[in-house]
Amino acid sequence: MIVLALGWLAAALLAPGAPARAADTAQEEANKKVVVDFYEKAINQKDFEAASKYFGNRYVQHNPGAADGPEGLKAFLGFLKEKFPQSRSEIKRVFADGDYVILHVHAVREPGTRGSAIVDIFKLEGGKIVEHWDVVQPIPEKAANGNGMF
Amino acid sequence: MIVLALGWLAAALLAPGAPARAADTAQEEANKKVVVDFYEKAINQKDFEAASKYFGNRYVQHNPGAADGPEGLKAFLGFLKEKFPQSRSEIKRVFADGDYVILHVHAVREPGTRGSAIVDIFKLEGGKIVEHWDVVQPIPEKAANGNGMF
Repeated sequence: MIVLALGWLAAALLAPGAPARAADTAQEEANKKVVVDFYEKAINQKDFEAASKYFGNRYVQHNPGAADGPEGLKAFLGFLKEKFPQSRSEIKRVFADGDYVILHVHAVREPGTRGSAIVDIFKLEGGKIVEHWDVVQPIPEKAANGNGMF
Repeated sequence: MIVLALGWLAAALLAPGAPARAADTAQEEANKKVVVDFYEKAINQKDFEAASKYFGNRYVQHNPGAADGPEGLKAFLGFLKEKFPQSRSEIKRVFADGDYVILHVHAVREPGTRGSAIVDIFKLEGGKIVEHWDVVQPIPEKAANGNGMF
């Protein structure tokens, strides 16, 4: 658990977004930590209770596949636990601008598959998560360039 | 043209990402303007020459459908001009963190269709664009919540 947490912290610090940190306000710094820990607890540990401490007074959901509110996330994590218990998301980049934190993520539902590229956008108020948007694209088998999607 | 340009500037200023501007460095501010104008020139006006003044010493492309380098963008804009001359992308949110600018975009290839949600990530060096990632998702007909993808 500690190793995992440190791994995630390291990922956040070493992300290409990291040079940006010099320009982050204290609130942007704090928001990045909140979102990275929320993501780890929710999407990787699939622990709704642990993740929910980061919710503000609402959780407005824009992912068209998920129901609105914290209950929608709870249902989604239940689905992941049952259907894709080994699913794993790796945060590649973390950005913050004002009340927003943006994650660039490689999500793999079944080990050994190519998975999807995802960008998640979270809005925070007072250091708590209140809104979420995302865009999800399966990584294609072939690409017109050799640079990869990350 | 002026109206269009002003429209884009207004969109950038009024975007929900706007409150963040107070915390932006001067370079982040400048980078946002560069990327918004690059996007307008390239994706909406489909004017490769006008867009290319914003390139740095390289343009590393991570979109798996596009060839690497400025030539890849040129070919993509040619494709848009020929196949989807009325295609139009609206920037919904603009974020900046250090060397990176992130756009949340609603792209419609044919008027009247739902289009796609896109997040574009640009890396800049010295105020010039040198690298691009994106994630693209068609907007589905039905959603599990009423909040829309933006």
